[in-house]
Amino acid sequence: MHRYRSHTCGALRASHVDETVRLSGWCHRIRDHGGVLFVDLRDHYGITQCVADPDSPAFRAAEQVRSEWVVRIDGKVRRRPAGTENADLPTGEVEIYITDLEVLGPAAELPMQVFGDQVFPEDTRLKYRFLDLRREKLHQNIMKRGAIIDSLRRRMKEQGFFEFQTPILTASSPEGARDFLVPSRLHPGKFYALPQAPQQFKQLTMIAGFDRYFQIAPCFRDEDARADRSPGEFYQLDIEMSFVTQEDVFQAVEPVLRGVFEEFGEGKPVTPVFPRIPYRESMLKYGVDKPDLRNPIVIADVSAEFSAESVTFNAFKNVIKAGGVVRAIPAPGAAAQPRSFFDKLNDWARSEGAPGLGYIVFEEEGGALAGRGPIAKFIPADVQAAIAAKAGVKAGDAVFFSAGEEAKAAKLAGAARIRIGDELALGDRERFEFCWVTDFPAYEWNEEEERIDFSHNPFSMPNYDHDAFMALDPQDKHTILGITAFQYDIVCNGVELSSGAIRNHRPDIMEKAFAIAGYGKNVLEAKFGGMLRALTYGAPPHGGIAPGIDRIVMLLCGEQNLREVVMFPMNQRAEDLLMGAPSEVTAKQLRELHIRLNLPEKKA
Amino acid sequence: MHRYRSHTCGALRASHVDETVRLSGWCHRIRDHGGVLFVDLRDHYGITQCVADPDSPAFRAAEQVRSEWVVRIDGKVRRRPAGTENADLPTGEVEIYITDLEVLGPAAELPMQVFGDQVFPEDTRLKYRFLDLRREKLHQNIMKRGAIIDSLRRRMKEQGFFEFQTPILTASSPEGARDFLVPSRLHPGKFYALPQAPQQFKQLTMIAGFDRYFQIAPCFRDEDARADRSPGEFYQLDIEMSFVTQEDVFQAVEPVLRGVFEEFGEGKPVTPVFPRIPYRESMLKYGVDKPDLRNPIVIADVSAEFSAESVTFNAFKNVIKAGGVVRAIPAPGAAAQPRSFFDKLNDWARSEGAPGLGYIVFEEEGGALAGRGPIAKFIPADVQAAIAAKAGVKAGDAVFFSAGEEAKAAKLAGAARIRIGDELALGDRERFEFCWVTDFPAYEWNEEEERIDFSHNPFSMPNYDHDAFMALDPQDKHTILGITAFQYDIVCNGVELSSGAIRNHRPDIMEKAFAIAGYGKNVLEAKFGGMLRALTYGAPPHGGIAPGIDRIVMLLCGEQNLREVVMFPMNQRAEDLLMGAPSEVTAKQLRELHIRLNLPEKKA
Repeated sequence: MHRYRSHTCGALRASHVDETVRLSGWCHRIRDHGGVLFVDLRDHYGITQCVADPDSPAFRAAEQVRSEWVVRIDGKVRRRPAGTENADLPTGEVEIYITDLEVLGPAAELPMQVFGDQVFPEDTRLKYRFLDLRREKLHQNIMKRGAIIDSLRRRMKEQGFFEFQTPILTASSPEGARDFLVPSRLHPGKFYALPQAPQQFKQLTMIAGFDRYFQIAPCFRDEDARADRSPGEFYQLDIEMSFVTQEDVFQAVEPVLRGVFEEFGEGKPVTPVFPRIPYRESMLKYGVDKPDLRNPIVIADVSAEFSAESVTFNAFKNVIKAGGVVRAIPAPGAAAQPRSFFDKLNDWARSEGAPGLGYIVFEEEGGALAGRGPIAKFIPADVQAAIAAKAGVKAGDAVFFSAGEEAKAAKLAGAARIRIGDELALGDRERFEFCWVTDFPAYEWNEEEERIDFSHNPFSMPNYDHDAFMALDPQDKHTILGITAFQYDIVCNGVELSSGAIRNHRPDIMEKAFAIAGYGKNVLEAKFGGMLRALTYGAPPHGGIAPGIDRIVMLLCGEQNLREVVMFPMNQRAEDLLMGAPSEVTAKQLRELHIRLNLPEKKA
Repeated sequence: MHRYRSHTCGALRASHVDETVRLSGWCHRIRDHGGVLFVDLRDHYGITQCVADPDSPAFRAAEQVRSEWVVRIDGKVRRRPAGTENADLPTGEVEIYITDLEVLGPAAELPMQVFGDQVFPEDTRLKYRFLDLRREKLHQNIMKRGAIIDSLRRRMKEQGFFEFQTPILTASSPEGARDFLVPSRLHPGKFYALPQAPQQFKQLTMIAGFDRYFQIAPCFRDEDARADRSPGEFYQLDIEMSFVTQEDVFQAVEPVLRGVFEEFGEGKPVTPVFPRIPYRESMLKYGVDKPDLRNPIVIADVSAEFSAESVTFNAFKNVIKAGGVVRAIPAPGAAAQPRSFFDKLNDWARSEGAPGLGYIVFEEEGGALAGRGPIAKFIPADVQAAIAAKAGVKAGDAVFFSAGEEAKAAKLAGAARIRIGDELALGDRERFEFCWVTDFPAYEWNEEEERIDFSHNPFSMPNYDHDAFMALDPQDKHTILGITAFQYDIVCNGVELSSGAIRNHRPDIMEKAFAIAGYGKNVLEAKFGGMLRALTYGAPPHGGIAPGIDRIVMLLCGEQNLREVVMFPMNQRAEDLLMGAPSEVTAKQLRELHIRLNLPEKKA
């Protein structure tokens, strides 16, 4: 017989009755029923009930074990007494009568329980992560993460992609966040950076002719932590393709994501064809560039309606005159809500710095819509009807309004849309609603510095005739701010999974694009010289995307915090409480790396 | 038609004749045959010959293109004229008559050619890696690397292993090499380390109950470069299993490695069952702990034979009297070699610091063996016969001798075995000979500090009764130096692919093991506190191994240098010449990380 086990703890069935078996595992739960000991033995594969009574030669040994001790148990498989079977357990028809028990790994008194649902402080969970990981939900999340990554990888290969490894010790990358630096021992005063993303390397892989790249890529950003962003490292499904248009990227990536969400979504519906929503449309309809489409509310612009001469609601009219907009946020069925519903929303809007949310409640009156509420009287019936039509509301619904400078009004409308959707419990939350957001502007106006700046990734290809782009006057603010790029986001349930783009593969257009944003060739050369050099020696058109794996796993595990889907995460202060990182190093190490500490002065 | 291609450059066959197609790719080779232009268009998938004659509307455009320009070509597939087919090319039956040509990415004058076999300096190859990677052999190596990793992953899963990701920003690990450090922004004066290996994390994964772990794991060691070791990062197939003996690890890993070498070894034979060779036996028979078993020579100990009273060769007799040994290295068929063969070996041995290699050449004389050579006359015929029997040689062979203190004599014998094998071209080199080397000593004598030290990994389980181990007297040098550990190496063709071990999972035995090596509990606690804590809360017996992926790929690609199997390697001075790493950083970055530079003083 094997030294440790003939079967795993999830293997035994009624067909094994009368066999002599050997199991090893953790003592999950130990019960003493009137002198008979029940030990639920657990391993990765399942739980098997083991029994010792005072007649068992192993009874004395079994009496010694405690929760989470690792033991080897020999015994005979027997059918559980009628009525005591456990249908929830695959091994629930049988139990083992213990004939021998060996302690393989005793456990000290536990700082946290593995069995049961008790909640423990985060610091305890992280310091004793090896115990936390034994708990059912976290253990399952980690296994599900692995299965999701396997599935992503398989689906990428089925689409003809190849997996590559790019360097982790490298140069600073232009993702815009803070780099983690690694001092060089051989080159005093110089530093490596950990990649914020393998962006340049994947582009170089295309320029080297590999055609279809992917990588389950570790990425590193020295940013402060958030629930959906680990401090330090995270993984993305990094993708790049050559000789493609934006449409090809969508066609390649959409089935991978849809497939994995269908496979691991536990039956929740997944968008069959991902809608494509231009950025400007998304900002109008959802007030945000990552709309949660589970929420059925669609915002409408009603500036024209409020501009009508017959309208006497001057607060909005003045906003419009000053160049602002009025947005209508429908609230289906809200007419049935108490006054407090409307007051609460208004209070919330004021807490967001807005003057409040005007609203109209629509009721039926003699076969026609009649608006009620504080501002209805300033709006004649025909305009009310026009607003209702634009917002798509009917009797029994309400409409809220967000007025102001366009960007602010849109943002407030978007936030109101989410609140109203939540309050009214609109839409089925138990599904995965995907969309592509497309046509992001290439440039934006930097209000503070009064200049044109890149609005997202400086490496995206402008969606503009190449010759016309080369001829652009950098002073032509109006034209330039209207240019969009082949840049897109993939969004699921309001979570941005990734940005992507068709890259600017032409060094001349790259130079021009940087010139428009006020960067000379020297800046481009200094920061991205390697990349620019590569583009000069025969670069193919190419593009890609990089969906965040941790976020995908979070969505599929129904978790709100990355630490529930990462095996050994750091805490919010970027500390590994288990291994004790970061930690002090020796003077010799510092000397070898040609650095010394520069500590903040301690307060006396 | 698609914007860039209807087919790849490897797709077209005779069955496509008369179709109008679109290809995109790199101009691999351009030839002008009497006014007719031939452009070999290349992409990842193959090469297609494209033709333009002066009648083609695209002739003028085609005349402009140069090597490595990226172009789109439209045209009609036609059968090549009889006699001009290229059977070496899958597309060799056809060519495209170019009707349209668009330049997608022009190329400046090339610093190195992609087409052809010209050799370029390493610095050029690394600085223009994107060009080097387009060259056929390197491109194929990188693709083969990917296929090998895919296969390793598939085989590991078939063996029931699960893949996990462990942290890259972590604490210093006890692998004994120099760490790469990452200064912490949030914790002034503290540093993360990049993992030299995920050793502790994979053990924690076992203690967390995940049973069978693997990872294609990036590892980081700040060591000086060698041909078979990248400066900086490398990958290993990191493996760990719970509730296993050493035999289980062998049974799990052997089919994975054998399978991948059979799959990618291009028909070269692979050891069907990997022999297990105890360390001491390996040092005797091969003079090394990573024997190349393609070499058929087996070293024998002939100390007893040379001790015989009848032997008068005092140089060796004195060595033996002083506690040394004499090892015999057979040289099959060497009797036919000229005198210079023996002289050259002796010169080489002296260059290694040895007094020389004695030898006997055996010939047949009247049905019996007769020894010839400088020292034969000091050895009577019966002892010569005994030596020949022990070394397994016959008439026509020779035997060389290495005499001295055991470790030195073994090492010299091992080196001589390799040289003799090479000189005589013994054994089929075109195969993969694997073995396990087992039973490494747990401790060794530190001559310099006159104390007992760990000989390899301090976390390996001693192969010794646990109670007896706990009772060991740390002064009992003789017993302690005789203890072996459950520690093993996997070796292929003389290349050590990995060490592995059954781990010490018992904190009491760990403490004792450290005490024997003179380390107090405080050292253990300070260096490995997290690990020790984990072992205290119910640790299963576990063990593993971590074969080096880069070395596996090197063996399977027949390459001598890691840079031929890594996509973006650093040079020997740990520089990335393409991206310019390491590089200087800003004063702000240093301030944020609470460090300042400590540069070596410049010479005046």
